[in-house]
Amino acid sequence: VTMTSSTPTMPAPATANTIEVLSDRVAVGWSDGSSDGFHHIWLRDNCGCAECRHVFVGERLSDPASIALDIAPSSVVGGDSVQIVWPGGHRSTFSSNWLRMHAYGPSASARRTSVFHYWTAAEVQTPPQMHFDDVMASDESLLEWLRLLRRFGFTIVKGVPTEPGTVTQLAQRIGNLRNSNFGLIWEVESMPKPESLAYTSVKLTAHTDLVSRESQPGLQFLHCLVNEASGGESILVDGFSVAEELKRQGPEHHATLSRVNASFRYQNDFTDVQASFPVVRLDHNNEYYEVRYSNALLAPLQCDPHDVGPFYAVYHYFSQILRDPKWEYSFRLEAGDCEVFDNRRVLHGRQEFDPQTGARHLQGCYVDTDDFLSRLRVLERTQDFRIR
Amino acid sequence: VTMTSSTPTMPAPATANTIEVLSDRVAVGWSDGSSDGFHHIWLRDNCGCAECRHVFVGERLSDPASIALDIAPSSVVGGDSVQIVWPGGHRSTFSSNWLRMHAYGPSASARRTSVFHYWTAAEVQTPPQMHFDDVMASDESLLEWLRLLRRFGFTIVKGVPTEPGTVTQLAQRIGNLRNSNFGLIWEVESMPKPESLAYTSVKLTAHTDLVSRESQPGLQFLHCLVNEASGGESILVDGFSVAEELKRQGPEHHATLSRVNASFRYQNDFTDVQASFPVVRLDHNNEYYEVRYSNALLAPLQCDPHDVGPFYAVYHYFSQILRDPKWEYSFRLEAGDCEVFDNRRVLHGRQEFDPQTGARHLQGCYVDTDDFLSRLRVLERTQDFRIR
Repeated sequence: VTMTSSTPTMPAPATANTIEVLSDRVAVGWSDGSSDGFHHIWLRDNCGCAECRHVFVGERLSDPASIALDIAPSSVVGGDSVQIVWPGGHRSTFSSNWLRMHAYGPSASARRTSVFHYWTAAEVQTPPQMHFDDVMASDESLLEWLRLLRRFGFTIVKGVPTEPGTVTQLAQRIGNLRNSNFGLIWEVESMPKPESLAYTSVKLTAHTDLVSRESQPGLQFLHCLVNEASGGESILVDGFSVAEELKRQGPEHHATLSRVNASFRYQNDFTDVQASFPVVRLDHNNEYYEVRYSNALLAPLQCDPHDVGPFYAVYHYFSQILRDPKWEYSFRLEAGDCEVFDNRRVLHGRQEFDPQTGARHLQGCYVDTDDFLSRLRVLERTQDFRIR
Repeated sequence: VTMTSSTPTMPAPATANTIEVLSDRVAVGWSDGSSDGFHHIWLRDNCGCAECRHVFVGERLSDPASIALDIAPSSVVGGDSVQIVWPGGHRSTFSSNWLRMHAYGPSASARRTSVFHYWTAAEVQTPPQMHFDDVMASDESLLEWLRLLRRFGFTIVKGVPTEPGTVTQLAQRIGNLRNSNFGLIWEVESMPKPESLAYTSVKLTAHTDLVSRESQPGLQFLHCLVNEASGGESILVDGFSVAEELKRQGPEHHATLSRVNASFRYQNDFTDVQASFPVVRLDHNNEYYEVRYSNALLAPLQCDPHDVGPFYAVYHYFSQILRDPKWEYSFRLEAGDCEVFDNRRVLHGRQEFDPQTGARHLQGCYVDTDDFLSRLRVLERTQDFRIR
């Protein structure tokens, strides 16, 4: 469910030209010459008939554990749909589009292409941006915005009314707000009794938010209401670009950073939240899952003693690359701008500012990656989800 | 940050009897004869002085990347605290308790004991239970309740007023409510246009909730307002007990179930949430992280074709063990009872009920594991967190 996983939401027109029933699976040959295998038990298990799946709810009614492990079809017919008769007479029909979208194995993997662009600062001097009125008014613009967010991991939304609270309207265009100990919406300004370094005027090196929580929030929204202070320029860094750079420069460092658990902790009078995960986390396909990096919340390392030296060495190295201007997109948020970014991929920071020179006030909130991807899938849906 | 990770919150009185400065670390010998090593860079990095850590916020101000990788102390003195002088004159003081709590390596691991009891149905015929008035009134009872929850993965809270909405008071005694597409609080009753099988009257085999979300909610609360229908008995199963049973019966099956990603998907007109994780998920120490199991939301498997057969075989096997009465704690929720359980460990279900025989109405909500453990740590805190 990482933002970087490609999900088969867009159907490609498909015809099952050839059908071959093998001992454990059905081999389907497509019109483009490629083919995919579907195991018998997989096909029976994914039957979408009214007996196997609740017509209104769409959830599965059949129990996978009730299917014989050695089940095999009595007959299979191809075409625009694949129709199967099972011993005992149960029938399953799959649209060929659905089958092709849900295929697994090398041929299916080869068809999937990455939708991500890992960037340098130079490449985003003209940042991906949208206008508030457009994304609020039309689903087409909303989809365009979400695709930019997925591709670059950040966008700037212009023209967001500077009335306090507006950031939540923008966020809720995507999904539910994610709650945290800072509340559903939080104020970024210099405060006398800060609960976080964010609420002071000090420089914040590029970091991800809520690193001490098991699930770092996915999308972060930072809406500028006032920015009259000198200093305080915003910084964004594509953490996946930097991780790739680390891999090029020192693959053994990259392996350490993605293997050894760092520890993170946030404490105040009412809260004590802890998490331990690698700074660069990979998924089961060795693709980037997330970056988790915040000096302020780093806690005592609790790893194998042999990993202490290597961890600090790569942490230094990674930190140096992160601060290289090659990767730091630096800009000034103006009143009415809202930066929206994938908090698990794109690190954010700001320069020190001088609160004596003028007010600086941002409002922020979060939306989970699940909800972001859900909205994207629903907008990209081309048929009723109940149709198999 | 799994509920099963033991965290060093309880300080044991400690004195650093012997100090030996080695090439890369300081070896500290404790009064009980055991010893721990602390790498020089680890010690310098975790300095808690006002220059290195914000006095009020408690967050780190120093930058780990600014410390020389080959730093070594100029002098170290032990006792109730460990006092270090670094080249250049910077001084760090650690209480010996703090050091011992944050020690890493074999000796520290050996000191940590499990606080979890994996149960059979017979062992919980008298279930761990608390009274609503007690947990609402006193922090001592709250702590007792949370420790029961951690140990058994579930409790029954008796005497919860049957006024709608009361379940949120109970949950907020622990932390923020976790939002979902079902809302902050949801009604479990038979509905004409259900969004989920939970909102029908059919039998629900034991499952975990929100399997299609990256982060399954940690604590689940199910508060019974009315139960006058015949049928509908509640079921709880300790998923970690069942996983251990699977490991005893077939270690190769256990390895498959904890390695191969299953896929899960929840769809309705406005939502399409997907996740892929193993059904039994282990952490980096090979300890149980969570169980993720729901037939209703299982989606087409997207794994290596060689894993399809082995996955279905173990899924069958695991499902059979799950339904063995040896593991199924079956009971009737009465009005005023609230079952509270770790949704990532303890599976829940219910028998079919007959809505014609009387009303059955539960209200439910979730609290994240982070917030549960945070409350537990704060209640167990024995000193101001700012004191190092």
